[in-house]
Amino acid sequence: MKNTLGTSVTMTVFGESHGPAVGVVLDGLAPGLAVDEAFIAERLSRRRPAGPADTARVEPDHFRILSGAWQGRTTGTPLVIVIPNENVRSADYDQLAHVARPSHADYTAQMKYHGFQDPRGGGHFSGRVTAGIVAAGAVCEQALAAKGIRVATHILRCGGVEDAPFTDVASEIGRIEGRSFPLIRDLEKQVEAAILAARQEQDSLGGVIQTGICGLPAGLGEPWFDSLEGVLARAVFAVGGIKGIEFGAGFGFAELRGSQANDPFRMQDGRVVTAANRSGGINGGITNGMPVIFNMAVKPTPSIARKQQTVDFVEGKEVDLALTGRHDPAIIRRICPVVTALVSVVLCDQLALRYGTDYLAQL
Amino acid sequence: MKNTLGTSVTMTVFGESHGPAVGVVLDGLAPGLAVDEAFIAERLSRRRPAGPADTARVEPDHFRILSGAWQGRTTGTPLVIVIPNENVRSADYDQLAHVARPSHADYTAQMKYHGFQDPRGGGHFSGRVTAGIVAAGAVCEQALAAKGIRVATHILRCGGVEDAPFTDVASEIGRIEGRSFPLIRDLEKQVEAAILAARQEQDSLGGVIQTGICGLPAGLGEPWFDSLEGVLARAVFAVGGIKGIEFGAGFGFAELRGSQANDPFRMQDGRVVTAANRSGGINGGITNGMPVIFNMAVKPTPSIARKQQTVDFVEGKEVDLALTGRHDPAIIRRICPVVTALVSVVLCDQLALRYGTDYLAQL
Amino acid sequence: MKNTLGTSVTMTVFGESHGPAVGVVLDGLAPGLAVDEAFIAERLSRRRPAGPADTARVEPDHFRILSGAWQGRTTGTPLVIVIPNENVRSADYDQLAHVARPSHADYTAQMKYHGFQDPRGGGHFSGRVTAGIVAAGAVCEQALAAKGIRVATHILRCGGVEDAPFTDVASEIGRIEGRSFPLIRDLEKQVEAAILAARQEQDSLGGVIQTGICGLPAGLGEPWFDSLEGVLARAVFAVGGIKGIEFGAGFGFAELRGSQANDPFRMQDGRVVTAANRSGGINGGITNGMPVIFNMAVKPTPSIARKQQTVDFVEGKEVDLALTGRHDPAIIRRICPVVTALVSVVLCDQLALRYGTDYLAQL
Amino acid sequence: MKNTLGTSVTMTVFGESHGPAVGVVLDGLAPGLAVDEAFIAERLSRRRPAGPADTARVEPDHFRILSGAWQGRTTGTPLVIVIPNENVRSADYDQLAHVARPSHADYTAQMKYHGFQDPRGGGHFSGRVTAGIVAAGAVCEQALAAKGIRVATHILRCGGVEDAPFTDVASEIGRIEGRSFPLIRDLEKQVEAAILAARQEQDSLGGVIQTGICGLPAGLGEPWFDSLEGVLARAVFAVGGIKGIEFGAGFGFAELRGSQANDPFRMQDGRVVTAANRSGGINGGITNGMPVIFNMAVKPTPSIARKQQTVDFVEGKEVDLALTGRHDPAIIRRICPVVTALVSVVLCDQLALRYGTDYLAQL
Repeated sequence: MKNTLGTSVTMTVFGESHGPAVGVVLDGLAPGLAVDEAFIAERLSRRRPAGPADTARVEPDHFRILSGAWQGRTTGTPLVIVIPNENVRSADYDQLAHVARPSHADYTAQMKYHGFQDPRGGGHFSGRVTAGIVAAGAVCEQALAAKGIRVATHILRCGGVEDAPFTDVASEIGRIEGRSFPLIRDLEKQVEAAILAARQEQDSLGGVIQTGICGLPAGLGEPWFDSLEGVLARAVFAVGGIKGIEFGAGFGFAELRGSQANDPFRMQDGRVVTAANRSGGINGGITNGMPVIFNMAVKPTPSIARKQQTVDFVEGKEVDLALTGRHDPAIIRRICPVVTALVSVVLCDQLALRYGTDYLAQL
Repeated sequence: MKNTLGTSVTMTVFGESHGPAVGVVLDGLAPGLAVDEAFIAERLSRRRPAGPADTARVEPDHFRILSGAWQGRTTGTPLVIVIPNENVRSADYDQLAHVARPSHADYTAQMKYHGFQDPRGGGHFSGRVTAGIVAAGAVCEQALAAKGIRVATHILRCGGVEDAPFTDVASEIGRIEGRSFPLIRDLEKQVEAAILAARQEQDSLGGVIQTGICGLPAGLGEPWFDSLEGVLARAVFAVGGIKGIEFGAGFGFAELRGSQANDPFRMQDGRVVTAANRSGGINGGITNGMPVIFNMAVKPTPSIARKQQTVDFVEGKEVDLALTGRHDPAIIRRICPVVTALVSVVLCDQLALRYGTDYLAQL
Repeated sequence: MKNTLGTSVTMTVFGESHGPAVGVVLDGLAPGLAVDEAFIAERLSRRRPAGPADTARVEPDHFRILSGAWQGRTTGTPLVIVIPNENVRSADYDQLAHVARPSHADYTAQMKYHGFQDPRGGGHFSGRVTAGIVAAGAVCEQALAAKGIRVATHILRCGGVEDAPFTDVASEIGRIEGRSFPLIRDLEKQVEAAILAARQEQDSLGGVIQTGICGLPAGLGEPWFDSLEGVLARAVFAVGGIKGIEFGAGFGFAELRGSQANDPFRMQDGRVVTAANRSGGINGGITNGMPVIFNMAVKPTPSIARKQQTVDFVEGKEVDLALTGRHDPAIIRRICPVVTALVSVVLCDQLALRYGTDYLAQL
Repeated sequence: MKNTLGTSVTMTVFGESHGPAVGVVLDGLAPGLAVDEAFIAERLSRRRPAGPADTARVEPDHFRILSGAWQGRTTGTPLVIVIPNENVRSADYDQLAHVARPSHADYTAQMKYHGFQDPRGGGHFSGRVTAGIVAAGAVCEQALAAKGIRVATHILRCGGVEDAPFTDVASEIGRIEGRSFPLIRDLEKQVEAAILAARQEQDSLGGVIQTGICGLPAGLGEPWFDSLEGVLARAVFAVGGIKGIEFGAGFGFAELRGSQANDPFRMQDGRVVTAANRSGGINGGITNGMPVIFNMAVKPTPSIARKQQTVDFVEGKEVDLALTGRHDPAIIRRICPVVTALVSVVLCDQLALRYGTDYLAQL
């Protein structure tokens, strides 16, 4: 199950950065869901490099649906979306067949695949594979929206700039969607400037992103090994650049006492709510009906132009490396739609497990 | 697979706080591994309440092995360990059949199980279930040790006290094992005092714990959905009190640039190593041969004696709640052996997947 | 997932023939289902040796529910049933630690577990493990019955005696339940006589059994790898004595042409039905609303008192073997409730996957 | 996991008969295995219609590898093979949007997918999907052959013609490969004549096929739910036309006594063997080192030109149906390479689980 996520609704990713294509199989979806090619394209465009703060490799993402859709709707059988690689410059990577880029997967791929891996552009480890995830996630995101469930991810912190955290997810999602950078507040220029400053110095930036989900029913998830926290965490750690996740107050709990950390329950319009949401919408692994909110740590892009110390793992000797090629000085903008897509797929799976395979079909 | 973790080596937990027993099924283990009852008992004792900083409910943890062991060794078939519940005072929970303890799973259990859940002592959501995990983990931990792989978890931060982070895991593990509180530095008294101060004020404490693993081969884990980070995160989020996890520099990456964050590769005695370990031993989801290190956020115990606002979810009305009964003012000491156990099971599974089911058998 | 079956509702079996106990974990069941100890006991009694045609080892099957039930109903968390082994005579098996009983699993267990397996009474390969399956199946069978879904298994052929095949499953189930041997027609004496004749000659008998399911909705199952045929087949091949399965006309299709084999669709009371049921209720892996009917081949019990040629696999030499101990001259009667139980668990899983985890709860 | 098979090595199928393509994702394969396009093409040609005994729809099967191969070898990441549909005549199926072909999946697909399924050519239920399976299986078959493990499937019975059963699998595989029909004996003309006679009468034929595997180590498979019998059965029931499977003597066991059915163990050249192989190479779900042999029942192709009674499931009324279009009068020849492919994938998975993910890599 190495490249497959999920139980009832499953997503399988495939492809290499410089191979013919990347793509995705989305299986177990309810029949009759909209397969809206314009919306998929729009979501792909949010992941695509878009300016000086991104890599110069811009792929058109001309995707093709090979199966699972008929007359604009899901059939209920595997939906396969293939996205050809068109803008490939493999020569950029000739230097890398033997040399491990620091904090990249080149060396670990060598240890795992014994030299048979496709080394061009990071091969299967490339962020290019996330294009398939975004395409699949777009279909899931629309299916969720039809049920009143919304997901969005924004940059919470990057290069010293702090966005506002989610407080009213439903209304803030609209603001995030309206901006060229996924931010709640009007901080696009500041974030872009910080990234460009790093690039100027042949360096890169990380940051923190935050996902909010609203509209989920209470009672979703399981105690112990299928806690919603565990299932979401496993999904987002698929992205190599993500190195941490925290739900609700997260690491901030270390500074709180129980009396400060607990979320008092209240009645509101006949419904149980919590007066605060430090739990991030999850108690005992199960949704409590409040928005689910979690933060993720994004490490700085490891590909930098500065000279770095590393090894030639075939020759077994130390070498210096100065990367050429086209790289992002920060992936934090482009990672947001990927996380939203992963979360959307996970939620479709969770809802199908809980309420059955036709739940999202709206028959 | 709700209460089951793993693929080749799997662990299934069961039991309720005030039912006859809790327990665990550990399946897929190699045959011929030591089943050392004294070591299991020792590990259970580390999880057991042990003084004024813990709950007054002390269970003797008289475990019984029902299957899967023969002549002191694993047979290769399911190993089942049952731990009876002996010190049960269910009357303490009468007040809770209808009233949701804030930030506990009472309300979410109600939404999921519609009132059929066992409400006594948190039922299946109780930390009592972790006794089975610790017992299973003890067997795995010894199997790993026989291969030179060591795992340990210590309190990194609690109540304003800071322990030293792992720097040389192999030697620090010994120090942690030797103390009454899992700490690298001699800070037991300070941590205990902070917890007792919180209890004094009818309150509770959270903190941060840290796990270190040494001796793992490079090449373990997968790109994308079975990244070692994702698999470990899913496992530890089984514990309700854990609300965050970060690998290596984790959320600290947000303040670093790529040139500061990357781990340069070096040669050492003919072996590839990294000069720093900000990646926490994992690149692209796969081990690089350096120690795997990660931190987890532990929320303050939600059960506190102070009066709290909440709801009666059957009557649908707001009520006040002042908990009686026996509770931990902090679970941070007791959670460490649970995490070590979870991690040990995960590693046995990963090694069996990679190297085959007999790998740990040392035939 | 070696000893675990299922996806949403899962069953894990454990135990050895001469260990402390056998048992089962049934996870993912809807909350609020009846846990009827008298019915479980009744189902266990159908599996229990009951006369001269069975082994002389009669276990009382005093089962104990360790978790997952509260006030006579499922809680929704893992239901664990343990059945102690009480009537154990391990000395009978001393001769077998090194000697492979022909067509038993002794030799294959040795090749898999390298001598660490528990050899007493077949260890984990013993039919004794099916007691746990029957107990779990009883809970599932009652949950299905509450939805109008019935399952039964009878002896179709044994020792030259032929029972009638299912034609009207709903009414025939009642007849099977009413007899001391699971048969539609009044043939108990004939079957018993055939088995006793075989025992008289220190030999054993196999046969064919047939399972019928009525009341299933159309649309259950999947094309390709989760076809209902595939899922049921996998479950029943858990029983070592079953060596074949065929759905509907099965191997008889080889003698038919398409015009004879096809089941014409008709309308009946506004419902689509088929005029014949040679497909056994399944088309393309999915139920069509007609009864699901399948046959299974049961091999003769391999434990026979006659002298047999075999090997001592430790010494690596040929030896003769004349089994002493207590054995069934035919397991065909006792295997029927085991298959019914396996099928009941599979159907609860399939229904939960299709209609959600609360489907059977009848809230 | 609906269209995914396996645990360590997994295969996911996708595609519809008249959509853009069918295809397969083969994940978890060892790195460095040959990806031999000529061999894949050869195996596809065995599945392709080839003469008057087959359908007139002949697809060229111009497959394309999208990922997972590099310089002619597997990389260890998902291998994706896509086979475009080129010879499509969808108009043939206009009559079928509402009308259920008897014993086809049209009606069950309607009940499952509520009318959103692609109805053209059976959609995802089409035998066309098996082209992907054959392509994936070819890669696995070569990997097995490099380890001395061979798999073949032949027609055992069809239209009154009986082939010889496997007795010496290794030598008989060569004979099967050399013929235009998969047969051990020189009976191609007789089988073809029987099929053509059925077609002449607007009818179709079924039969029995047999698979043999040699070279497998002893100790593969599991007791209970991952018995090799169960795992193989689940895989082959993916093929809609297969309605039964029996291992070794199978249903013939019903006529045998234990003394006739048991396989005596013997020593041969220092190795444990059995004097007969009525168990089909499997005891207690685990291989015993003898050839694994099993038979499968294949129902007659349900698409026949004769007029049949059926229903219009949208209008809810009875109608007559006389199929036009292009159909096979028997799929028994073309099903053999599909079964060999499925079995090859299953064996690669089983070996990877047992011996690790690099086992087949021959590093």
